[in-house]
Amino acid sequence: MAMKKKPVTGMKDILPKEMAIRDYCIGLIKETYKTFGFTSVETPCVEHIENLSSNQGGENEKLIFKILKRGDKLTGAVDKLIKSGAESVPDTDKAEASNMDNETGLDIDVSTLSDSGLRYDLTLPLSRYYSNNANDLPSPFKALQMGNVWRADRPQRGRYRQFMQCDIDILGEASILAEIELILATTTLLGKLDFKNFSIRINDRRILKAMAAYSGFPESDYDTVFIILDKMDKIGLDGVKEELLGCGYSSEAVDKYLNLFDKATGDIESVRFIKEELGDYLDTEVSDNLETIITSVENAKAADFKMKFDPTLVRGMSYYTGPIFEISMDEYGGSVGGGGRYDEMIGKFIGTPTPACGFSIGFERIIMLLLENDFKVPGEGEKKAYLVEKGMPSDKLLKILEKAKEERAAGKSVNVVVMKKNKKFQKDQMAEEGYTEFVEFFKDKDM
Amino acid sequence: MAMKKKPVTGMKDILPKEMAIRDYCIGLIKETYKTFGFTSVETPCVEHIENLSSNQGGENEKLIFKILKRGDKLTGAVDKLIKSGAESVPDTDKAEASNMDNETGLDIDVSTLSDSGLRYDLTLPLSRYYSNNANDLPSPFKALQMGNVWRADRPQRGRYRQFMQCDIDILGEASILAEIELILATTTLLGKLDFKNFSIRINDRRILKAMAAYSGFPESDYDTVFIILDKMDKIGLDGVKEELLGCGYSSEAVDKYLNLFDKATGDIESVRFIKEELGDYLDTEVSDNLETIITSVENAKAADFKMKFDPTLVRGMSYYTGPIFEISMDEYGGSVGGGGRYDEMIGKFIGTPTPACGFSIGFERIIMLLLENDFKVPGEGEKKAYLVEKGMPSDKLLKILEKAKEERAAGKSVNVVVMKKNKKFQKDQMAEEGYTEFVEFFKDKDM
Repeated sequence: MAMKKKPVTGMKDILPKEMAIRDYCIGLIKETYKTFGFTSVETPCVEHIENLSSNQGGENEKLIFKILKRGDKLTGAVDKLIKSGAESVPDTDKAEASNMDNETGLDIDVSTLSDSGLRYDLTLPLSRYYSNNANDLPSPFKALQMGNVWRADRPQRGRYRQFMQCDIDILGEASILAEIELILATTTLLGKLDFKNFSIRINDRRILKAMAAYSGFPESDYDTVFIILDKMDKIGLDGVKEELLGCGYSSEAVDKYLNLFDKATGDIESVRFIKEELGDYLDTEVSDNLETIITSVENAKAADFKMKFDPTLVRGMSYYTGPIFEISMDEYGGSVGGGGRYDEMIGKFIGTPTPACGFSIGFERIIMLLLENDFKVPGEGEKKAYLVEKGMPSDKLLKILEKAKEERAAGKSVNVVVMKKNKKFQKDQMAEEGYTEFVEFFKDKDM
Repeated sequence: MAMKKKPVTGMKDILPKEMAIRDYCIGLIKETYKTFGFTSVETPCVEHIENLSSNQGGENEKLIFKILKRGDKLTGAVDKLIKSGAESVPDTDKAEASNMDNETGLDIDVSTLSDSGLRYDLTLPLSRYYSNNANDLPSPFKALQMGNVWRADRPQRGRYRQFMQCDIDILGEASILAEIELILATTTLLGKLDFKNFSIRINDRRILKAMAAYSGFPESDYDTVFIILDKMDKIGLDGVKEELLGCGYSSEAVDKYLNLFDKATGDIESVRFIKEELGDYLDTEVSDNLETIITSVENAKAADFKMKFDPTLVRGMSYYTGPIFEISMDEYGGSVGGGGRYDEMIGKFIGTPTPACGFSIGFERIIMLLLENDFKVPGEGEKKAYLVEKGMPSDKLLKILEKAKEERAAGKSVNVVVMKKNKKFQKDQMAEEGYTEFVEFFKDKDM
């Protein structure tokens, strides 16, 4: 029997120590977000391949785990595949001239083999969910989703092909109350997990665009410009300048653009500076709203962190339409979560525009940081073990179980196990798992 | 844009009302099983196709959602498929003579297209997990697993292709302490969910076999006999008799066999009757242990249920080796959970025998029953809404958020939403979602 012991490539088994932290976090997340009026929802892990491939997922669409069709549908697809393959095999010239598959040398389309796939995020499924169930949901709808997503990424340390995402979204709320509530809820949670001194970087997609327009970049080039701007963290102002010039943009435009970033330093004054400087290029409501978000969160926050205006914040996904934000922690290089407003995605399903805004915490990164910091789950360590000598007569065993029942009913964790020959070793091992109390029961002793 | 609104066939979106019950149950399950010394573990939802197809899963192996290979591996597999297809196409006589695929009419093997699949249960992944991580795990290892599994079953009411399973297993414990602890933990949980008057039917695979041997059935026919016996619930003693005779077994054997079931009525006396009657056909340790399990659980139980010896209990999976058990509830026709000892499965991975015993509750059935009984989640309904007039100036908004912060910190659920034009309708709707308190904030009124 050739059974494989390791998990499939890029996925992992989660050991009890990590699970204890995960379980604690999941409980805390549900509890905390509930106090902000969020309700849990769940969608299937499997989605229609059409939805997963609808250009909402950017690069993630290349990483889909596709599920094979079944039964007649599979037979039909394979049949078709073989026929198209058989036709293209003999005629080498034709195959070479056609848009053939590079590696098989055949003009084939394998997409017919699959009709569904594993979700790569929770945002697309939520859009489908909302459009399917809007009649049964309140408006605005404050949704909490926790669930696994899958991406067939190149395996690398600390990044897995199955990982948990944890998203909160407010659908049907056009005002910045959505942004404020999302940021307050997320930061309150992080505070409860003892994270301190982090910052929420915030920007607005419309400010990004207005800055580019003001500097004289053509609208068709915005995405190119933003991809370069996004590297500011790594290559600095000079690096960004060099790359922009390298793309052939005029030094006038580049200088005008970078001058803005030079002067916008992250405080609330920077928002006002940008507002004045951009003039008619920016709707003042955008910058005023951003200011209100920042001051409201700063005043009503329940954790130790800073709001920072960051005009270099881009966020990859093209579906964002308004404010965007990211969690930065010094102890962790990159982002440990982010989100923003995406007012147009739901409309693509539902037909009518539906404002939407979401915030996703990097669940796996947060667990990693807690593990690295040797996080102690509150209330853990109250574990008791009953060591029962082998061959305990059943009348005595009854009394032991009765005793365990009482302690368990009082909320205590009691593990009833058979006493091993090497009792000391057994107790040492259990102590390592967090057992602090041991009670021993012998056949020949009274209890 | 052709986006599909419905979930994929046979899977479902879970609405907030059901999610509240699910979340509550998940929390209660973790909390309750923790008091019995179980620790959470998690395995990837995706497993090697070799493991999923290793004959541990019985009928479920026919229902696997298979995942398509990616990149070069897929190209190679498709290439091979096309070549094998192309070869078998022209030579019709050869194709007909070979073990060809009935529907494509081609001699092809589609299994090469897939290298992994979605797990159909949690037992097989746990066996792999234990063999992969045994060095890092305590012995005995008491594992709690909650997670989704997938089966491409024919869609039908109340049965879904993705569903949650909830298993507890004790690995490395050969004594009946495992069975006792598993049954006590599971029934304590059911009691906390207000289930009453249910029963745990228990039998032992070795008693099943001894009864068949004693009656004179040949060992090679046991499975056939057990499949018929398993129908006792539906077709009764007479129906079983008819089917057994229909299979050509001697009326002497059939009468001897059925006489045993006629006399074993479900109480502890029946275990003793079977023990005496079977004599040398049954190791007395088996029946003595069964008796101890029943009396121990009856005496140490923390819920309102009965233990019943049921010699007709078969349980489908062939991997069971010792005691087997099932939860029966009158309010629900079928079983709402079950389990048993499977001492040989882990050894198939690990090489050395490892005793194992597990109990799985039918999570989805329990949720269904709770929904049908209009189960109220304890502590729910303490929900408060702040209705904020549109265009609230930011200084006043700050005060509102500050007030919400205080209430939330005290554990209250506060939903801050924009007041709608039809305020009465808005409040009525929120009342339906369980909001009991409303506070209104106006632009022109002092707070």
